[in-house]
Amino acid sequence: MTGPDVALRADFEALAGIGRDPAGGWSRPGWSPQEQAAHDWFADRARAAGLSVRQDAFGNSIARREGSEDLPAIAMGSHLDTVRNGGLYDGALGVLVALEAARRIAPGPRPLEIIAFRDEEGRFGPFTGSRAMTGELDEAGLERLRDGEGVLLADAMAAVGYRPDGPRAAARDLSGIAAWLEVHIEQGPVLEAAGLPLGVVTAIAGQRRLSLRFTGVAGHAGTVPMDGRRDAFQAAARFAVAFNEMIHSEGEGARGTIGIVRITPNQGNVVPGEARLSLEIRDADNGRLDRLAGRVAALADDAAVATRTSVSVKQAYASAPVAMSATLIAAFEAAAVDCGHASCRLLSGANHDAGVVGRHLPAGMLFVPSRGGVSHAPDEHTDWPPIAAAAEVLSHAAANLLQSRAIRD
Amino acid sequence: MTGPDVALRADFEALAGIGRDPAGGWSRPGWSPQEQAAHDWFADRARAAGLSVRQDAFGNSIARREGSEDLPAIAMGSHLDTVRNGGLYDGALGVLVALEAARRIAPGPRPLEIIAFRDEEGRFGPFTGSRAMTGELDEAGLERLRDGEGVLLADAMAAVGYRPDGPRAAARDLSGIAAWLEVHIEQGPVLEAAGLPLGVVTAIAGQRRLSLRFTGVAGHAGTVPMDGRRDAFQAAARFAVAFNEMIHSEGEGARGTIGIVRITPNQGNVVPGEARLSLEIRDADNGRLDRLAGRVAALADDAAVATRTSVSVKQAYASAPVAMSATLIAAFEAAAVDCGHASCRLLSGANHDAGVVGRHLPAGMLFVPSRGGVSHAPDEHTDWPPIAAAAEVLSHAAANLLQSRAIRD
Repeated sequence: MTGPDVALRADFEALAGIGRDPAGGWSRPGWSPQEQAAHDWFADRARAAGLSVRQDAFGNSIARREGSEDLPAIAMGSHLDTVRNGGLYDGALGVLVALEAARRIAPGPRPLEIIAFRDEEGRFGPFTGSRAMTGELDEAGLERLRDGEGVLLADAMAAVGYRPDGPRAAARDLSGIAAWLEVHIEQGPVLEAAGLPLGVVTAIAGQRRLSLRFTGVAGHAGTVPMDGRRDAFQAAARFAVAFNEMIHSEGEGARGTIGIVRITPNQGNVVPGEARLSLEIRDADNGRLDRLAGRVAALADDAAVATRTSVSVKQAYASAPVAMSATLIAAFEAAAVDCGHASCRLLSGANHDAGVVGRHLPAGMLFVPSRGGVSHAPDEHTDWPPIAAAAEVLSHAAANLLQSRAIRD
Repeated sequence: MTGPDVALRADFEALAGIGRDPAGGWSRPGWSPQEQAAHDWFADRARAAGLSVRQDAFGNSIARREGSEDLPAIAMGSHLDTVRNGGLYDGALGVLVALEAARRIAPGPRPLEIIAFRDEEGRFGPFTGSRAMTGELDEAGLERLRDGEGVLLADAMAAVGYRPDGPRAAARDLSGIAAWLEVHIEQGPVLEAAGLPLGVVTAIAGQRRLSLRFTGVAGHAGTVPMDGRRDAFQAAARFAVAFNEMIHSEGEGARGTIGIVRITPNQGNVVPGEARLSLEIRDADNGRLDRLAGRVAALADDAAVATRTSVSVKQAYASAPVAMSATLIAAFEAAAVDCGHASCRLLSGANHDAGVVGRHLPAGMLFVPSRGGVSHAPDEHTDWPPIAAAAEVLSHAAANLLQSRAIRD
């Protein structure tokens, strides 16, 4: 095989050999020996491309090539861990395309960095790698964070050779980075449906997660007349329909999902006495998130009144949207035009390392299509042409930024 | 304490001492040593009332006093087993009130029987006691029936002294019984709400149980736009609201309950890909049951079409309503009037031994109120005046029937 993508293809093939799971797909959970092996492999490849490589105190790999001037760096990358039985592209794509870009980009005034973050998938909690580097990781949590099997983060770190006081030392002086560029699979159906190879992310959606508990009166399904019922699942069902209508009526952008439903006692011959729902709302507009979350309580009350039940609504989690840098959006779009690739703007409903970094630094994200919208599964797939296009556009944009002496929006 | 109810009160107190559970209420599951002790105690009390007592090959206790003529018997009673941590009245009331009636009723042309059935609550399946006596119990099932812990019925029978071939020998020549009279707690709220001490049951509701499986497409709650979703829980919720409206619009009598809801994967950040519901419909009219069950499929299809999901509907169980004997309904109502007690007619949404026996013989049921509609719980309660009224009315009705030489409707 010849052409400009030979090294990139070879990198995909090599990384595909690390953490392959006999049960399907790839399993390189954060802080596993498999993730460590991927970082070690990445370090070799980055050195081969002429970059110097270190792993910070939290194990994030930072490959760097100095610039000709004393300016903040252009950083690009993503993560190398996967969910269990995950796919080849989630995270890995962003690191490999950044490696390819580094090989293509001529040195400039600014330093160039590739960062491969640890544990993006959250074995030990959300985005611990990028949060450690940006100083967000709760220091007290280090001796508290455990994975789903109860393994302590400090022990998992020690098992692959890191000191458990790592995160405290990993927080970086962020004035040394001018921009963060992350290429990632969309993990959704929008680009595929639009037939576009590239999407430029406008923002990482903010989230509200709410827990609802409808309380009725359990009763014998045979003996309690319909008029005498206080059926908690009927309340939940009415609410669910109204919630969905509310989100739909917001039009483009807002997303609302009732993902968890538990009823009690969940027996065929008993009118449900309790129904618990967990829902989430995502949107690019923090004010709209607040408004929609507020209306959840009103809709839940309506459903409770109609069914003579009661309801409690609690907000379990809230995160603000993170807007991508207008400068970097423009940089990606201009590069796409220059390279002759079509693109659209889109909201990222999923969160990414760029959502963490973007709270501190100008960040930009470039998406490629996910076949069938599938991710976190062995059959996660992106065709080669969009990957090649992303490598081209990232190289082009980063090369331009490397020359630019004023980047912050 | 003096008065006509002294023996009945004493019987309640004595039976309350058998199978009391330290964890609350009473636990006399079918074929437990506690149920056996209750049957042994009953035999003593029946003999003390001048009846001869045998336990049939399935352990049902049959107390009998011969009549002056060779006529089929008037039989009355209920069951002595309880659910775990159940109440004092479910089943026991019917047996104790029958004992009291036997003490009060003068001998007549017909024999009088009190039958205390085994395992009405269905530790080993529905109504095995009355089904054994009426010849319904599947003989091949005896070596197959197990309780929730895996105990084989044959072993549980042997443990309290019965031969495992019992049920085959328990089937009785039913031409020897002219009528079955069963007093029972309502286990529902109707009589309490109406302020009435007695209810005369018109029929045991028939049932249809259906399983529905809505299949959509699981997806990332952040990345799949609302318009692209095939949300199986939204389908289930729409269906649930429509199903409830359908049952309500049928007016008095029909009952419909969605008691089991399971969604997959049941994760906060995943659009549900599958939702399974189990529902039941009860009614006194078999044609209406068929019609309503048929409409479930249409409502499910509507919900699936609206959400771009698919649905399968399966009928898991069907039983026909069992009408109570018009003669025995009239006999209870006439007796209530004679004794000066108000009553109403009502449908039994729950099934009872009378629902089994009534498939073979004229059967009548008399309900007393359940406080708060509560049953199968330690705080199951019926006030004394309705119990005394039921004893009076049962005695009166049975005494009249004992004199009657032509009973079948």
